[in-house]
Amino acid sequence: MQTPWEYRYAHRMQKMGSSVIRELLKLTEQPDIISFGGGLPAPEVFPVKEFKEACNIVLDTLGAQALQYGTTEGYTPLREMIARHTRRYGIQVEAGNICITSGSQQALDFMGRLFLNRGDYIVVESPTYLGALQAWNAYGAQYISVPSDENGMIVDELEKALRIGPKFIYILPNFQNPSGSTLTLERRLKLVELADRYGVPIIEDDPYGQLRFEGEHLPSVALLDSQYRQDNGTYTGNVIYLSTFSKLLSPGLRLAWVIAPEQVTRKIVMTKQAADLHTATFNQIVAYEVGKGGFLDEHVKVIRATYKERRDAMLETMDEIFPSEVRWTRPQGGMFLWGILPDWMDATELFKTAIDKKVAFVPGAAFHPNGGGKNTMRLNFSYCSPDAIREGITRLGLLLREEVAKGARQKYLYE
Amino acid sequence: MQTPWEYRYAHRMQKMGSSVIRELLKLTEQPDIISFGGGLPAPEVFPVKEFKEACNIVLDTLGAQALQYGTTEGYTPLREMIARHTRRYGIQVEAGNICITSGSQQALDFMGRLFLNRGDYIVVESPTYLGALQAWNAYGAQYISVPSDENGMIVDELEKALRIGPKFIYILPNFQNPSGSTLTLERRLKLVELADRYGVPIIEDDPYGQLRFEGEHLPSVALLDSQYRQDNGTYTGNVIYLSTFSKLLSPGLRLAWVIAPEQVTRKIVMTKQAADLHTATFNQIVAYEVGKGGFLDEHVKVIRATYKERRDAMLETMDEIFPSEVRWTRPQGGMFLWGILPDWMDATELFKTAIDKKVAFVPGAAFHPNGGGKNTMRLNFSYCSPDAIREGITRLGLLLREEVAKGARQKYLYE
Repeated sequence: MQTPWEYRYAHRMQKMGSSVIRELLKLTEQPDIISFGGGLPAPEVFPVKEFKEACNIVLDTLGAQALQYGTTEGYTPLREMIARHTRRYGIQVEAGNICITSGSQQALDFMGRLFLNRGDYIVVESPTYLGALQAWNAYGAQYISVPSDENGMIVDELEKALRIGPKFIYILPNFQNPSGSTLTLERRLKLVELADRYGVPIIEDDPYGQLRFEGEHLPSVALLDSQYRQDNGTYTGNVIYLSTFSKLLSPGLRLAWVIAPEQVTRKIVMTKQAADLHTATFNQIVAYEVGKGGFLDEHVKVIRATYKERRDAMLETMDEIFPSEVRWTRPQGGMFLWGILPDWMDATELFKTAIDKKVAFVPGAAFHPNGGGKNTMRLNFSYCSPDAIREGITRLGLLLREEVAKGARQKYLYE
Repeated sequence: MQTPWEYRYAHRMQKMGSSVIRELLKLTEQPDIISFGGGLPAPEVFPVKEFKEACNIVLDTLGAQALQYGTTEGYTPLREMIARHTRRYGIQVEAGNICITSGSQQALDFMGRLFLNRGDYIVVESPTYLGALQAWNAYGAQYISVPSDENGMIVDELEKALRIGPKFIYILPNFQNPSGSTLTLERRLKLVELADRYGVPIIEDDPYGQLRFEGEHLPSVALLDSQYRQDNGTYTGNVIYLSTFSKLLSPGLRLAWVIAPEQVTRKIVMTKQAADLHTATFNQIVAYEVGKGGFLDEHVKVIRATYKERRDAMLETMDEIFPSEVRWTRPQGGMFLWGILPDWMDATELFKTAIDKKVAFVPGAAFHPNGGGKNTMRLNFSYCSPDAIREGITRLGLLLREEVAKGARQKYLYE
């Protein structure tokens, strides 16, 4: 029976089918499956002790404030702390450039609300972050995919995309989700220059930048842009920069931030007021209490060491077991790597067989807004223990060997 | 200088001017002002001790889960607790009917996303809740105002509004924000019947229903609807029901919920996934820990006693000092009462003089989406202590006497 509500859905919602990814991820929740499917931080690195101490201090000293309504832009000391952190990397921002959001997903949603009209184009890397596509699909976005390789977006292909007239460029320059690739300095500079030439602004999504466990830190696109544009001490940039506490502290707090020119930040704050008034006061004050003494600088080293060990376990096992027909990225940080199967192989079909073998990943097709990527897969290395990683990758590698052998036989039969 | 972002705002955002209310409320933040302007719960009733205990228990026993990503629909034990609580009032709901939101503001926003196309009409009480108007303005809503009195919406005026073809009816039946009025049982029954006859669904916003400190609890519109429609054990109702932990536990946690038919709840969950993935896991688990042993049933009695004392202090002082030309509501619960000044008086002008006398309120015009209400004001009685209330109301009463006297002299001069 249809309820009176159901025949009143607006048109936009009828198109919102259940996400294939979500259905797949449900299958991976069986307890005996080793899942490289999700995008979860290692729970072992959550600083539960420090967080608990901070909760107690905050409730003892600021209880009434922490449980009360707060301002829409966010808790000022937290915004100032983020501004100081950002200035360490050379970007000239103040608290007035920063709005706290309920996770980066909310920031992506606000970008859609603020800037998109139905049918607007967005330039994205292919593959790109699924959550951004979900956020912007709701606003009727269309996508111009620029191909990428192990060094990120192939910026030489960007110029023709910009001539289509996109509203903005969306890029994850560090240890990209899903591919694990990092945009080289040369490509960053070219990106900044092209975006400026065509007057197309950039959204830089940087949840993983701090999680580099080898190689040199690269300057953010936001910094390179403000240098290129010779911004003078205030942030008037062509780049809106997003980052989050989800990977450094805890995703369960839903705490992230947007950095934008001050006038744009004011619009974001007005958008947020209508959307959810403000992000939880208590969470913001506790995050400030955890972070204010420099704890996160130390803590991130623990996270890096943990993730490096896990990535190494994954890469070593892949090197050992995976058939030579499969290729993959070797990310220097972050949480994901990207597998490219032989052209004829369908990762969604492989996923179903893998579930039977009690191992899971995410088929890569969903990360390609304009199709393609059927033979790709995302593997998360942050969540499982090194032992589970070795076991799961072995299962997957053996399966891949079987499939490659089967494929070779079929090729033989039909050629 | 315009940043590249600024000339890219979508049309909808250009209309989003800074809210007059927000500008006014800024004035009330000076520390020596007694403000009846905000809508804040009394910080004295926040259960800081119990909350702190719950934080410690949760972090000791479920730390990794509490800091990790969670499901979009919300923490299942919390949703089951809310379902049990709701069933006590006769409404047949299960966890599958409930989605946790980041405050009721987010639920209002989702109602706009799910159901509104630009130009759609919504039936509202006049005056109505400002946050709902802010949420739905972003979706291009238009409003059909139905007048209200001290007994809530004048339902006899509803039928002609329904013939205009609204998408839904929005109503706050208990201790309405801003007016403090409560819809009578007779009017509730008429509302349910008319909504059913015209096939127009209802959004029932009930943040204050538990805060009744005198008189009899009235059945919710959701319950009356399911009785009228003879729902059989499942919630297929014509009413989407919103409520929140903001007034019972803490607004700083941003925890609220939506109750809807199960298929509609699934759409709300998909909307939420694109908007912010999920509401903070930690906050949900702690709220469950605080509430699971029945603590909130006891705690709400403390809140009721506190607010009753404050309302009494406000009403007694108004009875004593306010000039007879001013009328006001006498709410049996909630946090607000509503003042109606003489027709010729402008509450926004009065506000400016009141600020000079170090007392503040909210002028009522902003609560009227189609104009009017210039001579009305909202007074909050939950936030200030009884002594501050007496002092502030005395200041305001003396000012009103002056203004009324001035008005009478002018009337004499010009007649």
